[in-house]
Amino acid sequence: MAKIADQYLLIDPWKIIEEGYRSDKSEVSESLFSLSNEHMGVRGYFDEGYSGSSLVGCYLNGIYEEHFLKEPVAYKGISNRICFMVNTVNWLYTRIEVGGESLDLNHSRFSNFRRELDFKTGELRRELVWKTEKGCEIKLVFSRFLSMQTKEMGFQRISLTALNFSGPVSITLGMDFSIQHETYGQNFWDCPQKAAHDGLYTISGVSQNIRHKLFAGFKILSEVDGEKASIVEDRFVGCRFALNLVQGQERRLDRLAILYTTRDPAESAEATWAQGMALLEQRQTSSYHDSLHCNAAYWQKFWDKSDIAVEGDPEAQQGIRFCTFQMQQTYRGVIDGANIGSKGLTGEAYNGNAFWDTETYCLPYYIFSNPTAAKALLDFRYKTLPQALSRAKDLDCSGACYPVATIDGEESCTLWQHASLQLQPTTSVAYAIWHYVKITQDNDFLFTRGVEILLQICRFLASRGQWSPRRNKFGYYAVMGPDEFQMMVNNNCYTNFMARQTFLYTLQVLADMQSLCPEQKTGLLERLACTPDELAAWQNLASHMIIPYDPETGVYEQHEGFFDLPHIDIDAIPVEDFPLYYNWSYDRIYRNDMIKQPDVLMFMFLYNQSFSREAKRTNYDYYEPRCIHESSLSPSLHSIFAAELGLKLEAYEFFKFATRIDLDNYNRNTAEGIHITSIAAAWMNVVYGYGGMRSDGDRLVFNPTIPPHWQAYRFQIVYRNSTLQVSVDQKQACIRLLDGDPVTAVICGEVREINRNGLVSPIQP
Amino acid sequence: MAKIADQYLLIDPWKIIEEGYRSDKSEVSESLFSLSNEHMGVRGYFDEGYSGSSLVGCYLNGIYEEHFLKEPVAYKGISNRICFMVNTVNWLYTRIEVGGESLDLNHSRFSNFRRELDFKTGELRRELVWKTEKGCEIKLVFSRFLSMQTKEMGFQRISLTALNFSGPVSITLGMDFSIQHETYGQNFWDCPQKAAHDGLYTISGVSQNIRHKLFAGFKILSEVDGEKASIVEDRFVGCRFALNLVQGQERRLDRLAILYTTRDPAESAEATWAQGMALLEQRQTSSYHDSLHCNAAYWQKFWDKSDIAVEGDPEAQQGIRFCTFQMQQTYRGVIDGANIGSKGLTGEAYNGNAFWDTETYCLPYYIFSNPTAAKALLDFRYKTLPQALSRAKDLDCSGACYPVATIDGEESCTLWQHASLQLQPTTSVAYAIWHYVKITQDNDFLFTRGVEILLQICRFLASRGQWSPRRNKFGYYAVMGPDEFQMMVNNNCYTNFMARQTFLYTLQVLADMQSLCPEQKTGLLERLACTPDELAAWQNLASHMIIPYDPETGVYEQHEGFFDLPHIDIDAIPVEDFPLYYNWSYDRIYRNDMIKQPDVLMFMFLYNQSFSREAKRTNYDYYEPRCIHESSLSPSLHSIFAAELGLKLEAYEFFKFATRIDLDNYNRNTAEGIHITSIAAAWMNVVYGYGGMRSDGDRLVFNPTIPPHWQAYRFQIVYRNSTLQVSVDQKQACIRLLDGDPVTAVICGEVREINRNGLVSPIQP
Repeated sequence: MAKIADQYLLIDPWKIIEEGYRSDKSEVSESLFSLSNEHMGVRGYFDEGYSGSSLVGCYLNGIYEEHFLKEPVAYKGISNRICFMVNTVNWLYTRIEVGGESLDLNHSRFSNFRRELDFKTGELRRELVWKTEKGCEIKLVFSRFLSMQTKEMGFQRISLTALNFSGPVSITLGMDFSIQHETYGQNFWDCPQKAAHDGLYTISGVSQNIRHKLFAGFKILSEVDGEKASIVEDRFVGCRFALNLVQGQERRLDRLAILYTTRDPAESAEATWAQGMALLEQRQTSSYHDSLHCNAAYWQKFWDKSDIAVEGDPEAQQGIRFCTFQMQQTYRGVIDGANIGSKGLTGEAYNGNAFWDTETYCLPYYIFSNPTAAKALLDFRYKTLPQALSRAKDLDCSGACYPVATIDGEESCTLWQHASLQLQPTTSVAYAIWHYVKITQDNDFLFTRGVEILLQICRFLASRGQWSPRRNKFGYYAVMGPDEFQMMVNNNCYTNFMARQTFLYTLQVLADMQSLCPEQKTGLLERLACTPDELAAWQNLASHMIIPYDPETGVYEQHEGFFDLPHIDIDAIPVEDFPLYYNWSYDRIYRNDMIKQPDVLMFMFLYNQSFSREAKRTNYDYYEPRCIHESSLSPSLHSIFAAELGLKLEAYEFFKFATRIDLDNYNRNTAEGIHITSIAAAWMNVVYGYGGMRSDGDRLVFNPTIPPHWQAYRFQIVYRNSTLQVSVDQKQACIRLLDGDPVTAVICGEVREINRNGLVSPIQP
Repeated sequence: MAKIADQYLLIDPWKIIEEGYRSDKSEVSESLFSLSNEHMGVRGYFDEGYSGSSLVGCYLNGIYEEHFLKEPVAYKGISNRICFMVNTVNWLYTRIEVGGESLDLNHSRFSNFRRELDFKTGELRRELVWKTEKGCEIKLVFSRFLSMQTKEMGFQRISLTALNFSGPVSITLGMDFSIQHETYGQNFWDCPQKAAHDGLYTISGVSQNIRHKLFAGFKILSEVDGEKASIVEDRFVGCRFALNLVQGQERRLDRLAILYTTRDPAESAEATWAQGMALLEQRQTSSYHDSLHCNAAYWQKFWDKSDIAVEGDPEAQQGIRFCTFQMQQTYRGVIDGANIGSKGLTGEAYNGNAFWDTETYCLPYYIFSNPTAAKALLDFRYKTLPQALSRAKDLDCSGACYPVATIDGEESCTLWQHASLQLQPTTSVAYAIWHYVKITQDNDFLFTRGVEILLQICRFLASRGQWSPRRNKFGYYAVMGPDEFQMMVNNNCYTNFMARQTFLYTLQVLADMQSLCPEQKTGLLERLACTPDELAAWQNLASHMIIPYDPETGVYEQHEGFFDLPHIDIDAIPVEDFPLYYNWSYDRIYRNDMIKQPDVLMFMFLYNQSFSREAKRTNYDYYEPRCIHESSLSPSLHSIFAAELGLKLEAYEFFKFATRIDLDNYNRNTAEGIHITSIAAAWMNVVYGYGGMRSDGDRLVFNPTIPPHWQAYRFQIVYRNSTLQVSVDQKQACIRLLDGDPVTAVICGEVREINRNGLVSPIQP
C-alpha cells in the first residue's frame, strides 16, 4: 500500500490539536475540525473570515439542491440529474477591526496559535495573539459547539483580551446566506424575509430549485458597549457594534444561533419562519456555559457506552476516538429521513450523497450501539422505495433498484458505468435488513417494511439477471462489482453471491411469516401481486446462480475471465501515478488484474462464517497483492482479514491507515471533507478485526487478538438489549455483561455464557 | 431485419423525382436532393425560404468549428472537444414577393409541384405554380447546380412566368451568413468585409474559433428591370429589384456564386478576400447554360467509366446510380486534405466527421475507379500522423492511434467507450494501405509515407495490447470491436486478427524494402529509432496473438466469453423498440449475444480468401441471426456474404436495403443527411457481391452471380491502369478489357487472361 501519513496534529487521547498555524493545511484542518450534530454541520473555518484557501461550509443534513447536466446524455436509463447537499448559511460570520485594521490570518501578524477539538464536549476552541500594524496586541479565543440536545442550536464565543492597550474593537456579527456552493461556484438561496429587532437577527432562506425553507437567526447573549447598528442586505442580516477593551481584562461575546428547517419543500416559508422564530425565542435564554455543560454530559454518556480505549498506542487511541466522535456527530438517528453522506456534513465532495457505504460500512456500528438509528437507516430505504421502483423501470427492469448515490432517493450518479452497472447498492439493502434483524430480532420491521423491500429487490434481481443458455445457469451480465477497477464484466462473483443470498433470505422470511403470521404474509403477497410461480422462480434462480470459483486453487474468480487478465505488479507502479483515476488513461485502469478494493473478500467478510479459515487465507493471499486500495473503504476490510489470519503486521498497517485516514491525510484529499463512511469501518477494525467478533451466524462469535505493541484495549457493544464489554490485554480477554440478560456466544470456539461475572478467554496467537 | 421501406419518390433510371410536395418529408427531401462537388455541398432546401421544417445547410469540406464540452470529463485520455463541419453561407438566398405577398410553400397556395435531380447533369430542378391570395398565378422553376470543373462555383436559375396577369415581382437575392448551425443552435461567423458594387455582391466570413476564412460572392447574370437596391447587413449582402412580368412570357434570372477558401486558418482574411474576388471577377462571364453543359459533359465522362447498369430492376437501378452519384459528388480527390464525412456534405449528423468507414467502406470504390483519390485519402492519414501520435500518448501508449471520428486529425469522439476502446480506426488504416498497394502496386507511397504510418501503428498496437500470463498469449483487453453492441470486452476477434495482420504486413513491407531499397529502409528505421528488437517483438506478438475460435464448430468467437452470453431472439424484439439506442436502457444493449453489425464477418470479408467457403458459411449462419443491423454499414456486408454463399433471397434483401437506404429512408433518419459511407458499400454490393470480385489475393477473382429477377447488369473497374468491364446476364458473364494491358484473373476458379476480346464464363448457381 503506497500510502504515506502526513501528520501535523498533536497526539492526544481526547483531542485533536493544531499548535502553530499551518496555512498550507488550511482546508484539511477545516475538515478535521468540523462540527456536526446530524442536523447541521460546520467546517472548522475561521469565524472572522480568511482571505486564504478556505471553504466556508455549513451544511444541513437533507437540505439539497439539484443540478441537471448541461449536455445531458440521451441514452435511456442514464441519470442527468445530480442532487447535492447545498451550502447554506454562515451563522458564525464575524468581522473584527482594531484601529481600522481587520483581522485576517492570511495577512495579519499573529502568534500563539492553537486550535483544538475536544471529544469530551464537542467544543472547538482556537486561540491566538493578534498584533496589529500599529502594535496593538489582543489575545483572541474563538469557541463554538453544536448542541446535541437542541439540534437546531449552535453557540459561538469570542473572547478578547487587550494585552498592551485599552481601546475599542469594532465587531460585526452576522448570518450570511451569500456564501458560495463551492462545487458549482454559485449561491442557491433567495432570502425573502429578514428582520433585526428585539436583539434577534433573523433571515429566511429558500433554495432556488428544490425550494427548501430554512430559518436562521441569532441572538447576542453578552452585553456590548453602545448601540448595535443593524445591517440588512440581500442575503445577510447582522449588526455592528463596539467593545471597549481594557488592558488585561477579558471580554466575552457569546452568541446563540438557530438553524431551523422541516426539510419539507412543500412547507410554506411563512410557517418555517414562524416555527424557527418560536424556537429562537424559546431558546434565547440559554447560555453558552450551561449548554456546553449539557453537551459535555451528552458526550460523557456517549463515551461511557461507546468508547474504544486503547492502551499503549496513543496514535491509535486518538484515531479511533476521532472516528467514533465523527460518526456520532454525523448520524445518530434523530432526523427523520436522514442518511449518511460519504463526507458527512464536512464538505462537498460526493455531493453529500449516501452510497452503499451506509449499509455495508456504517450500519454495523449502529446495530451494535444504537439499534434505533440503525432502523432509521433502513427506514430511509423503505421511504425511498417508490424512487427505487421507478429507477428499476428506467433500467427496463422490475422491482426496486436502489441508487448508487442519492439524497432524495433518486439516482444521483450521472456516470452510467456506475449507476447502471453496480448492483451492490440494491443487494446491500437486503443484506442490511438481514444483518439488522439477525442481531435485533426486530420482526415488526422485518414482516412489514423489511419484507416488502426484500420482495421488490428480488423482483429487480430476477429481471436484471440473465440465463447463460449454454450452461443453463443464471447470472449477471454487464455489471461492475464493488471493485470499480473492473468495469462491465460478466458474473461478478460478489454480485451473484449476494443476489443468491437475497433470494434465499427473502424466501426464508416468507417461510417464517408462514409460521408466525400467515395472514400478514398472504396480505402482503396479494398486495404486491406476488404469485407462487414468482417465488418458485426465485428459488430456481438461486439454485442456478453462477459462482465463479476454481476448485483446484480454492480461489473465487472475481468475475468470469478475471484469472486470464494481464497481470500488473502493483508495487512497481510509481507513487506519482496515484491516484490512478487522474494519472492513467481511463481505459488503462480497467484492463489488468489490479483491483481497487475488496470484492471477493467483501462477501467473504459479510458472510464470514460461511467460509473456512483456509478459504479466507487462500483468497486473501490471491487478492490482497492485487489490491491498490484506491478506495478509502478498502484497508479496513483487509485489516480484519489479516487479524483473523494472524498476519499481525499487515493487520496493524491496514488498521493504522483506516483509523487515521483523515488525521494523517493518507489520501491527500481530506481537504474535501472527512471520509465519514470509511472511518465507520475503523470501528469494525477494532470490534471485528482485533475483537474477532463475527455476527453473521446464529450466535455472536469472539476470537480476540491484540497487536503486539498494545498493552490493552476495550470496547462495548449492545446486543439484543444486553450490553457487553470486551477487554483484551496481552494475556487474555475478558468479556463481561454490563447490562441486560446474559448472552450465549462462541468464544474462541467454545459456546459460553457471558454474564456479569465476566468470562476470561485466551487470545488468538 | 425489421427494416421497412418508406418510398415516396418516383422511380426513374437517371433521376430522383418528387411529384406533389410532401411537406412531412421536407427534411428527408432536402437530404436526398443535396448537391455537392467535394468542395461544397448544399441541401435541397427551398431557395425562396420556407417557414416549415427545414435545415438550410451549406457546408464546405474541411471547414469546421470546435465545441468543448461544457462539463468536461476529467479522466485522462477522454476527449472533451468536438470538431464539426460548420454550416456556412446560404448562397441561394432568395425572396419573392407579388403584390406584397411573399412566397413560402408552408403557407402559400401552389400546385404542380415537381422536384427532380438529374444524375446526368447534377442539376436540381423544382417547378410549381403559385397562386397568390389575390389570385395571381405564376409558374416558377428553380434550378441549381454546382460546377464540377470550377469547384468554388455554383449556379442558380429562377424562371418566372405570369400565367394570368402582367405586373411586377419583387425579388431579393443575397449571400446570407446568418444561418444557424442547427446542432448547436448558433451561428459561428463574423463577417468583417462586405461590398456591393459593379454588380458584384461579396462578403467574407471568419469562423469564430478556428478562424477559417471564407469568401462568398455572387453576380446576377440576367438583366433586371430598374435599379438594384443594395442590402448590406451584419452577416448579409444582397440586393432587391423588380421584374416586370408579362403574362405568358418566361423571365429567367441566373446567378453565379463563388465560395472560396484556402481551408488554412492561418491565411489572412485579406488574402482570402483578394483571391476570392479575383476568382469571381474571372468567372463572371460564365453562363448558366454553358456551365451546365460542361457539367453534363463531366458526368457523361464519369458515367461512361463508372456506371453500374441493371436491367430488369428499376428500383435497384435508380438506387445504385443514386449511390454512385452521391459518392462522386462527395469525394473525388480534388481537395487537398479532405476526407469523407459519414453524411458527406448533406447534413450535420455525426458532425461531418470521418470514421473508419473511409478506409473500410469507401476506399474500395476509389481504388477501383479513381486510385488518385484513394491515395489522397491515405495521405490524409499521413498528414494527420502527428495527431495520431499525440492521441496514443493521451492513452498512455506509444506510436499512432487514429481517431474514431475526426475532421482535423484530432479525436473528436467524446464518448470514451468508443474513442478509447475501439482500435479498428487504427488497424483499418493499415488495412487500407495494404489493400491500396496490393491493387495499385504504388511502392512510392508504400516505402515512404505508407511504411511510416505502418511502423507507428505497430508501435501503438504493441503498447496497447497485453499478455495473458496464464496462457502466455497476447491480445487486447477492454476493447470494443466494430460491433458496438459489445462494449469493453477482452480479445475481440476482429481486433486481434487485424492487429496480427498489421504486424505481419509491416514486417513483410520491411523485408521487401530490404530487397528493393535497403538504404531507404535503414534511413527510415534510424529516423524512427526502430530497433531490430522492436521488430522481433512484433513478430513475437503476432505469433502469440489470441484468436478466439471454437475448433469443434468452426465458429470464431467474437470475443472471449461471447458464446456464453445470454441469448436473445432478435426477431422477437418489437419493432417499436428500434432504434434500441433510444428505447432500451443503455446497459441492456450490451448484455446479450445480439450484435449491431458484422464483426467476425467483417475480417472474413476483408481477408476473404484466407477462409474457406465452409468457414464463411458456418460463421455467417452463426452471426447473421444475431445481427440487428442497427448500423447502416451492416446489410451490405451480409449481402456480399449471402451472394457468395448462394443465399439469393437474403442477398437481395440486404442488397435492396443497402442500395436504397436513403431513397426509402429505411432507418428513418435520412432527414439528418445521406448515409454517404454506407452507400459506398452499395458499390461493393454489386462488384464484390453479385460480381463476386475478390481483391485480397495475388490476383483478382471473379465469381459472378445474378439475382433471379434481373435480366442483366454491368460494371467497370480500373485495375492497374487497365479498365475491365463485367457484364452478367442470366446465362453467363462476360469480362472484357476496355483499356490498358490484359489482366490475368481467376474467373470461377480458373486462371484466365482478360483481353479486349473478352471472355465468357458461367455464373455461380
